[in-house]
Amino acid sequence: MHAYRSHTCAALNKAHVGETVRLSGWVHRVRDHGGVLFIDLRDHYGITQLLCDGDSPAFAALEKVRAEWVIRVDGRVKARDASLVNAKIPTGEIELYVTEVEVLGASDELPLPVFGDTEYPEETRLTYRFLDLRRDTMHQNMMLRSNVVRWLRNAMWDQGFTEFQTPIITASSPEGARDFLVPSRLHPGKFYALPQAPQQFKQLIQVAGFDRYFQIAPCFRDEDPRADRSPTDFYQLDIEMSFVTQDDIFAAVQPVLQGLFEAFGKGRKVHADWPRIAYRDSLKWYGSDKPDLRNPIRMQDVSTHFRGSGFAIFAKLLEQEGNEVRAIPAPKGPSGEPVGRKFCDRMNAFAQQQGLPGMGYIFWREAEDGSGMEAAGPLAKNIGPERTEAIRQQLGLEKGDAAFFLGGKPETFEGIAGRARNVIGEELGLTDRDSFRFVWIVDFPMYEKTEEGRIDFSHNPFSMPQGGLEALMGDPLKVHAYQYDLACNGYEVISGGIRNHKPEIMYKAFELAGYPNSEVDKRFGGMVKAFKYGAPPHGGCAAGIDRLVMLLADTQNIREVIMFPMNQRAEDLLMGAPSEPTNEQLRELRLRVLPKEA
Amino acid sequence: MHAYRSHTCAALNKAHVGETVRLSGWVHRVRDHGGVLFIDLRDHYGITQLLCDGDSPAFAALEKVRAEWVIRVDGRVKARDASLVNAKIPTGEIELYVTEVEVLGASDELPLPVFGDTEYPEETRLTYRFLDLRRDTMHQNMMLRSNVVRWLRNAMWDQGFTEFQTPIITASSPEGARDFLVPSRLHPGKFYALPQAPQQFKQLIQVAGFDRYFQIAPCFRDEDPRADRSPTDFYQLDIEMSFVTQDDIFAAVQPVLQGLFEAFGKGRKVHADWPRIAYRDSLKWYGSDKPDLRNPIRMQDVSTHFRGSGFAIFAKLLEQEGNEVRAIPAPKGPSGEPVGRKFCDRMNAFAQQQGLPGMGYIFWREAEDGSGMEAAGPLAKNIGPERTEAIRQQLGLEKGDAAFFLGGKPETFEGIAGRARNVIGEELGLTDRDSFRFVWIVDFPMYEKTEEGRIDFSHNPFSMPQGGLEALMGDPLKVHAYQYDLACNGYEVISGGIRNHKPEIMYKAFELAGYPNSEVDKRFGGMVKAFKYGAPPHGGCAAGIDRLVMLLADTQNIREVIMFPMNQRAEDLLMGAPSEPTNEQLRELRLRVLPKEA
Repeated sequence: MHAYRSHTCAALNKAHVGETVRLSGWVHRVRDHGGVLFIDLRDHYGITQLLCDGDSPAFAALEKVRAEWVIRVDGRVKARDASLVNAKIPTGEIELYVTEVEVLGASDELPLPVFGDTEYPEETRLTYRFLDLRRDTMHQNMMLRSNVVRWLRNAMWDQGFTEFQTPIITASSPEGARDFLVPSRLHPGKFYALPQAPQQFKQLIQVAGFDRYFQIAPCFRDEDPRADRSPTDFYQLDIEMSFVTQDDIFAAVQPVLQGLFEAFGKGRKVHADWPRIAYRDSLKWYGSDKPDLRNPIRMQDVSTHFRGSGFAIFAKLLEQEGNEVRAIPAPKGPSGEPVGRKFCDRMNAFAQQQGLPGMGYIFWREAEDGSGMEAAGPLAKNIGPERTEAIRQQLGLEKGDAAFFLGGKPETFEGIAGRARNVIGEELGLTDRDSFRFVWIVDFPMYEKTEEGRIDFSHNPFSMPQGGLEALMGDPLKVHAYQYDLACNGYEVISGGIRNHKPEIMYKAFELAGYPNSEVDKRFGGMVKAFKYGAPPHGGCAAGIDRLVMLLADTQNIREVIMFPMNQRAEDLLMGAPSEPTNEQLRELRLRVLPKEA
Repeated sequence: MHAYRSHTCAALNKAHVGETVRLSGWVHRVRDHGGVLFIDLRDHYGITQLLCDGDSPAFAALEKVRAEWVIRVDGRVKARDASLVNAKIPTGEIELYVTEVEVLGASDELPLPVFGDTEYPEETRLTYRFLDLRRDTMHQNMMLRSNVVRWLRNAMWDQGFTEFQTPIITASSPEGARDFLVPSRLHPGKFYALPQAPQQFKQLIQVAGFDRYFQIAPCFRDEDPRADRSPTDFYQLDIEMSFVTQDDIFAAVQPVLQGLFEAFGKGRKVHADWPRIAYRDSLKWYGSDKPDLRNPIRMQDVSTHFRGSGFAIFAKLLEQEGNEVRAIPAPKGPSGEPVGRKFCDRMNAFAQQQGLPGMGYIFWREAEDGSGMEAAGPLAKNIGPERTEAIRQQLGLEKGDAAFFLGGKPETFEGIAGRARNVIGEELGLTDRDSFRFVWIVDFPMYEKTEEGRIDFSHNPFSMPQGGLEALMGDPLKVHAYQYDLACNGYEVISGGIRNHKPEIMYKAFELAGYPNSEVDKRFGGMVKAFKYGAPPHGGCAAGIDRLVMLLADTQNIREVIMFPMNQRAEDLLMGAPSEPTNEQLRELRLRVLPKEA
């Protein structure tokens, strides 16, 4: 017989009754029923119940094993009594009567139990990650992640893409975040950088004539800690295609993600309609460039109803160019319960917490005199019934519904309006939590004005400006880029663009942002050079693997979907990284660590 | 019609004749037949012949395009004259009469032509890698590599393995080579390391209860340049399994590699018999721990025939303990041509070039008097006919064959004997070049004596000693490890071992090599800690992807099978890495670069 097992812990069933078998695994749980031991033995595949009593020569040894010891047992498969059958597990109809046991790996006392659902501090979990990962949820999350990555790869191959590996120790890639640097021993004083993304390499792959590239690509950003992203390395599904328009990219991506979410979404509905919304409209309608479309609320410009109205604050605001009043409609939810003053006051308080003076509201209720519907709330009184009714009609609201109003320069309140929209959708039960809603955000502005009044790239400098060179001759702030994001349920899951593959347009685009040609050559020399030797039109995108798995696993903490994550201070508590280098290492790199400034 | 193409450059055939189509691609070759232009248009998929003459409105523009420009053309598909059909390519029966052309990406004058097979210096090729990669051989090599990796992944999944990604920015992994360090910005003065291999992580994954792990894993070693390895990062197929013996690992690996080589070996025979040879025997028989078994020559100990013989040099050598005389049999090759004095003298000279005083030989030829076979060569005379005949019989040689002899301490000549064996096998045509021969090398010694006379690990310190703790109580130099390599055609393609998962055996094993427990805890703390909380017996191996692809592509230069390789000075000539950091970057990391020592 095999030294460790004849079967896995998920393999035995009624058909094996009477057989002598060998299992190995972890002691999941021990129950001592006074002279009869019941042990759940666990491995990667499942759990088998072991049974032993004083008649067995293994009893004395088995009595000594504790939770999480690794043991090998031999025994006879027995059918369980009908009353003891566990229909939830594949081995639930049998148990193994143990006649021999060998301890393969004992365990010290556990700092973290594997059995059970007790919460433990994250520091403990990360320090003993090898125990934490034995827990059922973590085991499932890791398998989910692995299966997701596999599924994505196969889907990409099936669509005619080829996976290529790009360098990891390389030159700085200008993605806007900080590079991790790697000092060179052979060239002391010089440094490599770890790629923030394989952006330049994937574009070079297109210039090299490979048509449909993808990679589950390791990426590195030295970012300040944040709950929903890894502070060091992460993986993205990186895609680039040649001879394509934006439509081609969308057509390539949609079936992949649609299929992925259908396969791993645990039955949650995946809407097949992926609308395209311009960046400006998304901010206006949803207060966000990654709107959650599970929430049906769409905000509207209602300035016209407040201009010259009796509500002096808005009327005055609207006298100034650029100011607007927008409404967040709040229809009653599926419960049918009217949205009343209490809820409206709570939302007003929410807006104040977020830093606004407040949020006006109107709600439409059953008139107290029984004559039908009436509008209530301070705003309604100020602007009068005609304007109030016009607002109701524009927003398509009915009795039992409400609306909130924000005014000023849209930039100052859009974000808060977006968050209010989320809360309203959640609290009124309007947001369909059991679904996935994707939306393409398109037509990003190419440039923006910085706080100092300079023109700078607002997103990716490598995107092709819509309208090409000609468009760059006009007002830069009016230029849209062929750049797009894909949002799902309020998260950005993909970002991409059609690239600027023409050196003359690239130089011009950078010039507008204040970079002379020499700077472009210096920073992106490899890529710009390549564009001078026959570059195809190309474009692509990248999807964060962690984010996709988080959505599918329905968790908000990135560390639940990474096998060995850093903590939020970018430390590996298990392996002890980062750590002090040896003097020899520093000497070889010709580096000195400077003392902390006083 | 699509902006860039209705078909790829490999799609059109006779069925499309008469259709108006659109293609995009690179101008592969232009031939101007006096007023008629023939252009081969190339994309990722293939080549289509374009045709244009003065009757076409596109003629003037098309006359201007040059090699490697990217163009879009519209035109009508025409059948070629029967005499002009090119049966070698799928589009060989048609050509496209161009009526419209658009230049999508022009090209400066080429530093490196894409069409043709001219050799170019590697520096030029790496500086303009995007052009080099457009060449047919490189394009094929990259596709081969990608398909190999895909095939390996699928084969591993099919065998029940799961792929997990392990951290890249992490702690030092002690694999014997130098780590690349990454300074931490959040913890100035501390450094991360890039993993030389995911060794500790894959073992932790076993301790965490995942049973059959694999990963196409990025690995990083700061090694001094060598032609056949990448000086920075490379990928390996990394494998680890729980509850297994050495046999299980072999059984899991063989079908994967056997299948891979059958799928991508271009018809070369893949021998299904993978022998196991002990490390000591491999050195003795083949002069190498990665023997090329396509070569049938097996060396033998022939000391007994020289002891007390008339050949004083060997006779004297053999008086000393530990010395041996070994023979390299050199049977005539498939041509049947006898191995004569001239060849023997050349091999003797080869041994002298390699630093030995020479290599004695005997060859068996047709006797000059026609009486049958006679032994020739100085050695034969010295030791006389009886001993000569005994040698011939031991080696199983016949008329027309020869044998070479080396004497002394085996360590001093084994390597040279191995190289001589390779040359003999090649030159006599004994080595079957059109095949792949795999061989497991097993029973590696656990320890060796260093030059300073210390006991140190001879290979992997994490392997389980054969015989466990008990074996470590005797002579360390006699302990074998559960450690193995797989060689193919003279290259090491896999290395692995059954791991030492018991803390007490691990501490003892390190103690023998001079490391106190505290040092073990310090250097491998994460893993040793894990072993104290229920570790399963486990083992695995790793295969270098580059090496596998090199064997399949039949190239000796690693840079032929990597998309964007470093040069041999670990520089990326295209992207300009490594480079000087900015002062701001150094300041954030609290580092100073020291001046070169005078």
